[in-house]
Amino acid sequence: MVWMESVKFRKDRLVLDTSLFVNPAVRNDFGNTPTKAIEGFLLLAEQIPSLEFYMPSSIFKELLNFVDEDNIPGRLLRILHQKSPSRHELSCPAFLLYELIEDMRERINKGLRVAEKAVKNVSKSDEREVIQSMRKGYREALREGIIDSKEDVDLILLAKELDALLVTVDQGAIKWAEKLGIRWLLPSKFKDYLLSSIKKI
Amino acid sequence: MVWMESVKFRKDRLVLDTSLFVNPAVRNDFGNTPTKAIEGFLLLAEQIPSLEFYMPSSIFKELLNFVDEDNIPGRLLRILHQKSPSRHELSCPAFLLYELIEDMRERINKGLRVAEKAVKNVSKSDEREVIQSMRKGYREALREGIIDSKEDVDLILLAKELDALLVTVDQGAIKWAEKLGIRWLLPSKFKDYLLSSIKKI
Repeated sequence: MVWMESVKFRKDRLVLDTSLFVNPAVRNDFGNTPTKAIEGFLLLAEQIPSLEFYMPSSIFKELLNFVDEDNIPGRLLRILHQKSPSRHELSCPAFLLYELIEDMRERINKGLRVAEKAVKNVSKSDEREVIQSMRKGYREALREGIIDSKEDVDLILLAKELDALLVTVDQGAIKWAEKLGIRWLLPSKFKDYLLSSIKKI
Repeated sequence: MVWMESVKFRKDRLVLDTSLFVNPAVRNDFGNTPTKAIEGFLLLAEQIPSLEFYMPSSIFKELLNFVDEDNIPGRLLRILHQKSPSRHELSCPAFLLYELIEDMRERINKGLRVAEKAVKNVSKSDEREVIQSMRKGYREALREGIIDSKEDVDLILLAKELDALLVTVDQGAIKWAEKLGIRWLLPSKFKDYLLSSIKKI
């Protein structure tokens, strides 16, 4: 059947996060600096014509904070496509709005409790230490495991738009990928995934 | 033309927030207790067959915290329809997600600065006062002028779904109404609006 053939040979798409080239736990699979990790990724990716790699432009800009632009090989831009999601055409299911707002509400309350505890602790310990520890607790309460930047939203929406496999270390993005039915890959398996894709051709 | 006739006679819909019957600044137009305000509203609304009134079920439940259920006249439920938005069918444009997340990000940073200031002030003034004033500042930073509950989302989405006129005191809901192209009415003009609708029939 013609239809089945065309499905069989459709290229699979992957949406990649900066963290893959920056976060040492994952990056080291490819190279011990961001620039080397990009090189290492490219060497594999070039051998896999069955996969298409994408990165939202905003995320790519983040990557440039870690890599000297002069050191980025031109090949990268042929292999790793920069594309923003179609922000003004896409929509998201309303139930996500409810979940986001309820989640934020709980986190806001938690953040206030962290702050109140800090105020009560000042008399007992060093002010600078109290502030340090409050910042950490506050960050955990309000930022961790949640989508908290437009770059994160780009990542999720681009994966949705392209029906792509999302590869990221960000727990907030993974949580949303699951809500939206987006496939995601354990980032620690990313190199293996690429290697096995080479063999299968 | 038949089509124009039917448009002309289509009932206009209004989505009402609890605040209209609870917030004294608006409620007093109708009565000096929530129960009397409901009665006052009913007396007018019953004379306006050209308008249909709606309230999300979650908002109606909030109203029951202020009004003794026994004192709610059965007529109210015939005039003021309880209906939740179709949460699992509706969607929202993706750009709203970006705005919400960017807005929250700024507010979260502001909340942390409020907390840090409080910690630094403890040595100078009474702990209890510092906490009180921090709570106020934190609330302003993180809650005011933003949709912060699923009831608020219900209000907005129901108005969108019904293409209704939104009547609320909540600034966060009004802000979102404007983003989504939902008509809204100055709540202080709600009684006048009803009165003028009676005259026009």
